[in-house]
Amino acid sequence: ARARELGVVVGRLPTGPLNAITDVEGVLVGHTTIDDGADLHTGVTAIVPEQLFSTWRLPAAVHVGNGYGKLIGSTQIDELGVLESPIVLTGTLSVYRAADALLSYVMRRRPDGLSFNCVAGETNDGYLSDIRRRLITERHVLDALEGASGGQPGEGCVGAGTGTTALGFKAGIGTSSRRLEVEGGVPVTTGALVQANFGGVLTVQGVPMPAAELIPGADGAEPPGNSCMIVVATDAPLDARRLGRLARRAIFAMGRVGASYSHGSGDYAIAFSTAPPQVPLLPDEALTPVFAAVMDAVEEALLNALFKATTTTGYQGHVSHAVPYDRLLHRLHRQRP
Amino acid sequence: ARARELGVVVGRLPTGPLNAITDVEGVLVGHTTIDDGADLHTGVTAIVPEQLFSTWRLPAAVHVGNGYGKLIGSTQIDELGVLESPIVLTGTLSVYRAADALLSYVMRRRPDGLSFNCVAGETNDGYLSDIRRRLITERHVLDALEGASGGQPGEGCVGAGTGTTALGFKAGIGTSSRRLEVEGGVPVTTGALVQANFGGVLTVQGVPMPAAELIPGADGAEPPGNSCMIVVATDAPLDARRLGRLARRAIFAMGRVGASYSHGSGDYAIAFSTAPPQVPLLPDEALTPVFAAVMDAVEEALLNALFKATTTTGYQGHVSHAVPYDRLLHRLHRQRP
Amino acid sequence: ARARELGVVVGRLPTGPLNAITDVEGVLVGHTTIDDGADLHTGVTAIVPEQLFSTWRLPAAVHVGNGYGKLIGSTQIDELGVLESPIVLTGTLSVYRAADALLSYVMRRRPDGLSFNCVAGETNDGYLSDIRRRLITERHVLDALEGASGGQPGEGCVGAGTGTTALGFKAGIGTSSRRLEVEGGVPVTTGALVQANFGGVLTVQGVPMPAAELIPGADGAEPPGNSCMIVVATDAPLDARRLGRLARRAIFAMGRVGASYSHGSGDYAIAFSTAPPQVPLLPDEALTPVFAAVMDAVEEALLNALFKATTTTGYQGHVSHAVPYDRLLHRLHRQRP
Amino acid sequence: ARARELGVVVGRLPTGPLNAITDVEGVLVGHTTIDDGADLHTGVTAIVPEQLFSTWRLPAAVHVGNGYGKLIGSTQIDELGVLESPIVLTGTLSVYRAADALLSYVMRRRPDGLSFNCVAGETNDGYLSDIRRRLITERHVLDALEGASGGQPGEGCVGAGTGTTALGFKAGIGTSSRRLEVEGGVPVTTGALVQANFGGVLTVQGVPMPAAELIPGADGAEPPGNSCMIVVATDAPLDARRLGRLARRAIFAMGRVGASYSHGSGDYAIAFSTAPPQVPLLPDEALTPVFAAVMDAVEEALLNALFKATTTTGYQGHVSHAVPYDRLLHRLHRQRP
Repeated sequence: ARARELGVVVGRLPTGPLNAITDVEGVLVGHTTIDDGADLHTGVTAIVPEQLFSTWRLPAAVHVGNGYGKLIGSTQIDELGVLESPIVLTGTLSVYRAADALLSYVMRRRPDGLSFNCVAGETNDGYLSDIRRRLITERHVLDALEGASGGQPGEGCVGAGTGTTALGFKAGIGTSSRRLEVEGGVPVTTGALVQANFGGVLTVQGVPMPAAELIPGADGAEPPGNSCMIVVATDAPLDARRLGRLARRAIFAMGRVGASYSHGSGDYAIAFSTAPPQVPLLPDEALTPVFAAVMDAVEEALLNALFKATTTTGYQGHVSHAVPYDRLLHRLHRQRP
Repeated sequence: ARARELGVVVGRLPTGPLNAITDVEGVLVGHTTIDDGADLHTGVTAIVPEQLFSTWRLPAAVHVGNGYGKLIGSTQIDELGVLESPIVLTGTLSVYRAADALLSYVMRRRPDGLSFNCVAGETNDGYLSDIRRRLITERHVLDALEGASGGQPGEGCVGAGTGTTALGFKAGIGTSSRRLEVEGGVPVTTGALVQANFGGVLTVQGVPMPAAELIPGADGAEPPGNSCMIVVATDAPLDARRLGRLARRAIFAMGRVGASYSHGSGDYAIAFSTAPPQVPLLPDEALTPVFAAVMDAVEEALLNALFKATTTTGYQGHVSHAVPYDRLLHRLHRQRP
Repeated sequence: ARARELGVVVGRLPTGPLNAITDVEGVLVGHTTIDDGADLHTGVTAIVPEQLFSTWRLPAAVHVGNGYGKLIGSTQIDELGVLESPIVLTGTLSVYRAADALLSYVMRRRPDGLSFNCVAGETNDGYLSDIRRRLITERHVLDALEGASGGQPGEGCVGAGTGTTALGFKAGIGTSSRRLEVEGGVPVTTGALVQANFGGVLTVQGVPMPAAELIPGADGAEPPGNSCMIVVATDAPLDARRLGRLARRAIFAMGRVGASYSHGSGDYAIAFSTAPPQVPLLPDEALTPVFAAVMDAVEEALLNALFKATTTTGYQGHVSHAVPYDRLLHRLHRQRP
Repeated sequence: ARARELGVVVGRLPTGPLNAITDVEGVLVGHTTIDDGADLHTGVTAIVPEQLFSTWRLPAAVHVGNGYGKLIGSTQIDELGVLESPIVLTGTLSVYRAADALLSYVMRRRPDGLSFNCVAGETNDGYLSDIRRRLITERHVLDALEGASGGQPGEGCVGAGTGTTALGFKAGIGTSSRRLEVEGGVPVTTGALVQANFGGVLTVQGVPMPAAELIPGADGAEPPGNSCMIVVATDAPLDARRLGRLARRAIFAMGRVGASYSHGSGDYAIAFSTAPPQVPLLPDEALTPVFAAVMDAVEEALLNALFKATTTTGYQGHVSHAVPYDRLLHRLHRQRP
């Protein structure tokens, strides 16, 4: 169940109709899921802003919370402040292939282009999937891209989240959104999608939920290579500098669910705007509520990534347990009467 | 009272004997407090690592969480990775004078030098103090520097924290420390000192403590210019790059007490190491527990900054209320049975 | 004489009418010069964009070529992308006082403000001036600011350049400008002002002019603390990100006159735009000619800083020789027939 | 011919025995060249430091002069300060495949690893090669890596330089090295290898050599996507921060041969050290001569990249002319009598 379905509500801002990154108009999400019930639990998730298809450049920024990761495409975004491709997420050892497949996708749509900056991120799903087999192919990536759609995105054990774990539990992909009005009554929708795969102690509305206590007998061994990829989309008119400020808050929000920000966690956020270029930019002074929207959406997306995931047995028999709702809610209600 | 005296314990790591940045051997703290009971509530806080006095360079790094602030000295620290002066904190419009006074202090001790990079930070205490009077003089700064000592540093409404507020309450200076053993059983002490002056909703052990609810009748108006300066000291052998990773976690820890990371908050962390240069550096793989120590020490230092502060009436009759222990603890115990 | 008066022309773009940063409309320059003919050769240079006085924020960026320097105000410019004060340049040990005096200047003009980010840079004039005397006062700084005017700025041994040396010769302040038309035939004026104080071998139009060869008997000892501060102004509509790209090219241009980019050289560039905020920004694709204008203007400003300076005997009898025109031109014409 | 064979000597420092990056002990270079005499002129160049094979981490840093490029692996180098893989260079649209092939190479040598940060850079060879065909395969990359050797590396139209052009002429791969003694008489060897592919006016020892003048009838059309990748290797004991300072100077050196640093040029430098970890680091104060060595080596490597290249007719009949030695030397000697 999603966090809200369990009664866990983050913050006071309303969500969009789907409570998903796809509430930002034109933003599509697609997944390719690979799960053989045994050694293979991996996949691809694609975030496709349709606005790309006209100008092939949307204002964008990357913030690196902890650089132990392989985000492809960041230096050009830093320089030019634009996103030129959809964003693809996958497992660590498939990220180069995913970027190459993304290039194929973009080249087909831009038959005259000679240079494209493809953006692909990864986290390490090697605890539940035989990562060294590198089985993601161009076809898997194109399927995620071409199958991307509006509507409710899959969450939990799907796409790039098929094999990820976080905070001692099975995790995966999660998403959420927030709506607010900025200066002048202009409505703004901001959404987040996360690939959750990092360490720490799950914290729900401030209440710690240690995996070792919620799942008796779980060994609590933290898989190596923990990381988190966060994608933030907004229809607010923002340039790269301002989007960089949003991206930073996305990383800050990880702390709210108990992230330990450990050495080995490659924590990255990419933020982009779908607003048409001719709209005047929001002034920095108007950003504080947008920052709050980003933090709330990321926090809830992270909870959804865990709450929608299901117990998974994978590579070498490794087991990652889903969050047990009953114990979690019991604990939550005891401490939040 | 300090957080621990109220029964609020952050994390599992033990503190140093004083639970203060001064637990890091050689690190001294001094305050000059200006409080006329009316329009003036400001001051100076100095952090003086005695190890400076031999080589005049300690490994150091700055991390800018939100650059809306005036930290003097950061670009040279970025380039050379060293701290060349004590660190001075004060109110916004006195920071240049404070840096100039710090220069006087350093020049006296280095009669042959021709170039010195002085480090001075600020937050805005203009809600409780008539900031435009700029009354900090060289004497105030030298008093803080020359009076710096080991032992328990003053907390709350002292020094650079005399006029600051945070999370809807009166705040000020706070400090805390943690001890742990790293690889090979080597003991490491890490301490933090904060000048707390930022917005958000006070959160104690995950429990939100909105000022408007704890202090009936408080208007909850958030003063402008909210910011936070964090100083982290450690005796772990770390170079500038690794210290930069610590500094980033210091900023992340602000979220744990409910920081909103708003537009106007200039959030900076400086981390330095007092370890002798010949000691081999800790490998990055050993840093995760040190990161945890930093985050716990910063969180507790922030709580101490609030819990040690007292209700203050200042400039233009502005009132900032101390955290009411009874209501806070009642709420805390109800939610953390 | 200025470079052009000697027949040394940099690049092909035309200059503005004054060949100075003051060709950018509204940009004023003021100097306070301190020269007692003996131990004291220092001063203050102020760059005052009149456009500041309406909104108090102009798009701006800083690029740090080599961070061994004390540029005050950079982190807030990085975050918010705006300049909030005039820019003041002076000698190293007076930079904090200069920033404090600049604060006084700004506060008088903004009686309601509570926070101001003042920008002050420095280079070390301690070879020709008794730098430890720190004799710059608020009055000196205010005189430079209040006396700032359009028209031809002083160059060579004036203001913050009174005591500086570069490339083995006496140097100081220099300025230059370029005009060009960008897309759509829109005219753009870009100007540079430099405080030249760095090491290397003077190179004029590609021809090396080693001081030891041009000035027989000169010891060629390079003073410590060599640095360069570069200010770039443009009326092109550019935001902070784009201005950061200009600032980087300003640093690159130092190489053209023979800068060695040595360890001890604090090389900083600040670029700002005076264009009204409602003008659409130049696209990045249109920037290449603007980059060329920046590089040409900085190169010529650096040459002017040297060619306008006069032989100076200063602190402890140190002598810094002016570039001997005859020998330089002889050499130049022999190699550029 | 190499620059020195033509009498063009850069700087005063001696070169290593091969005047190549392979003078740094353990550094190997390999090329795979694809040249069908018609539409295809591309390839792969691999730089393989043998010291990697023991610890799989060498101190390293990246500097981005202009981020319009696709350097894979930079964020993790920024965070951890280490190089974990050989460096591979190729054409723009093959860079993801090259990184993936490099991953295969590393995985074979590290059978237990689950995460590897592969470093691959690119410049755009689409003027002379049908870049959209993306014909680089894993085999091509492995051949370059496995065939890497000490000894004199190929230069000019080889490997990743097969299809590149620079400064109006055919360019390619070039290399050079410098030796010097640092404090205490310790010998240091520093080498550079470049993939030259950028715009501007060729400048040799300060003398401009416009292509339009040296090659009558050449149209001088500058191909799109101009960039430069620079690899700097040194056996000096340097950490990531110091190597970052070297990398910055590598970018500065491009200006010496006439780089225009245009908008579309993705200019990147990677510097790494082969010194064993236990050797004490060089202090920053000792770096100025190392900076000079880097700048000289890069300048000469860039000249070699041009001087060793041969006239090439490629994709769509595009012709890129080699530098005509006779005209260049005539012009040089006339102006450098």
